[in-house]
Amino acid sequence: MAPSLGQDIQGDVVNKQVILRDCVSGFPKETDMSIVESTLTLKLPEGSNEVLLKNLYFSCDPYMLFLMTNVEPGSPLIGFGVAKVLESEHKDYKKGDLIWGLTKLEEYSLVPSTQIQFKIEHTDVPLSYYTGILGMPGMTAYAGFFELGSPKKGENVFVSAASGAVGQLVGQFAKLTGCYVVGSAGSKDKVDLLKNKLGFDEAFNYKEEPDLNATLKRYFPEGIDIYFDNVGGKTLDAVLLNMRVHGRIPVCGMISQYNLAQPEGVTNLTNLMSKRVRMQGFVWSDFYHLYPKFLEFLLPHIREGKVVYVEDIAEGLENGPAAFVGLFSGRNVGKQVLVVARE
Amino acid sequence: MAPSLGQDIQGDVVNKQVILRDCVSGFPKETDMSIVESTLTLKLPEGSNEVLLKNLYFSCDPYMLFLMTNVEPGSPLIGFGVAKVLESEHKDYKKGDLIWGLTKLEEYSLVPSTQIQFKIEHTDVPLSYYTGILGMPGMTAYAGFFELGSPKKGENVFVSAASGAVGQLVGQFAKLTGCYVVGSAGSKDKVDLLKNKLGFDEAFNYKEEPDLNATLKRYFPEGIDIYFDNVGGKTLDAVLLNMRVHGRIPVCGMISQYNLAQPEGVTNLTNLMSKRVRMQGFVWSDFYHLYPKFLEFLLPHIREGKVVYVEDIAEGLENGPAAFVGLFSGRNVGKQVLVVARE
Repeated sequence: MAPSLGQDIQGDVVNKQVILRDCVSGFPKETDMSIVESTLTLKLPEGSNEVLLKNLYFSCDPYMLFLMTNVEPGSPLIGFGVAKVLESEHKDYKKGDLIWGLTKLEEYSLVPSTQIQFKIEHTDVPLSYYTGILGMPGMTAYAGFFELGSPKKGENVFVSAASGAVGQLVGQFAKLTGCYVVGSAGSKDKVDLLKNKLGFDEAFNYKEEPDLNATLKRYFPEGIDIYFDNVGGKTLDAVLLNMRVHGRIPVCGMISQYNLAQPEGVTNLTNLMSKRVRMQGFVWSDFYHLYPKFLEFLLPHIREGKVVYVEDIAEGLENGPAAFVGLFSGRNVGKQVLVVARE
Repeated sequence: MAPSLGQDIQGDVVNKQVILRDCVSGFPKETDMSIVESTLTLKLPEGSNEVLLKNLYFSCDPYMLFLMTNVEPGSPLIGFGVAKVLESEHKDYKKGDLIWGLTKLEEYSLVPSTQIQFKIEHTDVPLSYYTGILGMPGMTAYAGFFELGSPKKGENVFVSAASGAVGQLVGQFAKLTGCYVVGSAGSKDKVDLLKNKLGFDEAFNYKEEPDLNATLKRYFPEGIDIYFDNVGGKTLDAVLLNMRVHGRIPVCGMISQYNLAQPEGVTNLTNLMSKRVRMQGFVWSDFYHLYPKFLEFLLPHIREGKVVYVEDIAEGLENGPAAFVGLFSGRNVGKQVLVVARE
């Protein structure tokens, strides 16, 4: 199968890629993807608006599924990553700069300079952090919790998919704010992580709770002020029964619904009305302008060890399909990162 | 059956009441209520914090159902009304004053002074308006549309139950703001009213639209910026498919769901996320402080005929049960008012 890149270029490096065989419907499978190799000249065409990147860390995120349902077969997967600039005519990006932004799941990428989000200025923290805590998932947690959640000290916060790339930060931000925070996750290991490493007040394995409404009533006898929704479906429905007056529900994701031909019906929405709840979908890029403020807030906490970040690191492009597919069964523990190259 | 009021008081007037026979489940029926008479002394007990009222206009509203599910049998129905003060020791309310607030469905009521919302200062408009356009429904439309809806000129607005007490005002407020507005209602007469009297750009009878998603796509080829939700359920689900990015859904009511043992499931909530929609429940009383500003805005429009209000007026307490029950089958055209006494 001919890769999309490199056909007309005389190559002098091999460019390994993870490509999609076809559009994906429902949850993705490893067999939806394959590893191919092409050759690539490490030279930018003259006058190009593109930047030539060597990909280092690739971020595996659930939203990537939406990019796969309507894609040209044979294209490499698209997602956020950390990369090194090999060549650029753009004034902001010079050879050797480290950047993070939208790239492709391959060793080398030519991307439009507009797809680069930010040049990486702080390298005293792990570079992989720019796929997670200091990248899109971090900004998602920050904007969703602080901007949409409007948290106040002493409030009660519930987070689903709480050990994931975003959830683990929401819980820690809630603790920094002086909130009581409970997380749900899908295994005993994750629950232990939430309680013992990430500082959640309580955590439970939703797979072992047959009556989520009763579970939430147990952990939140006075109700929930902020529900940070990563999963939707049955969990959201149970939460709606337990919201407090003037509660907030930032809707970050609804991963439980992504593979369903017919989504589960949410039946308790009348509680939005009686409890005057604000439920709001968002994407991090609407809060792009807050990134400098976000770094200023978070970098000191990371350096002082007051905010930690759990990564699940897969090594090598060959493990990309498994790492990505694993997100949908909850196989990863913490933020799923794929190392394409260490430097 | 002994009425709750007047048992220990030597009476000198007959006080006719509409009482609940028992708690209501599902939609109310006329037989859930009965008309009874007691006698009442028109004299306030010394040192009382209550105010003795003669009820004039009573407001029949869907939310009253929530007050009926957990009520002491034999109590009169509770709701908003316009009344004349017969006796009061409260400094703000003197004999002969007109007020609106929470009262009971009976001829005379003793109510705590805290239940009175406002003294009526402007009597050049119909007094019944203080149960509707200038009362709780009016404030509901105002707060929901302007405060939660954040409308901008040129935006696309959809209103369900659009000829009702609240909906007809939302549509007119949308036109005053320079929006395009479409309403749905449940009969041809109501649709005609929306288009010919209330100034909606378009209107349709939802009972004649088998595919609401297609209907909305027809009226909103570019999508909906603001959906003012009065009904919930299937309509909300179809709307979610048609919201624009950064749309707003003030949730005022979900009347389609109130009689269901198991509410309909809403399946399209992932659109909140992808479209970054804000959906928010509210009650007018959270915006109580805006009432003076609201009057200042609306009274001139009423006097100049730029905002009109359609009332469905039932005469006499005896017609109270039918007027109330009719709300749930959409029998009323416009705001349902019950005249208890004209003065």
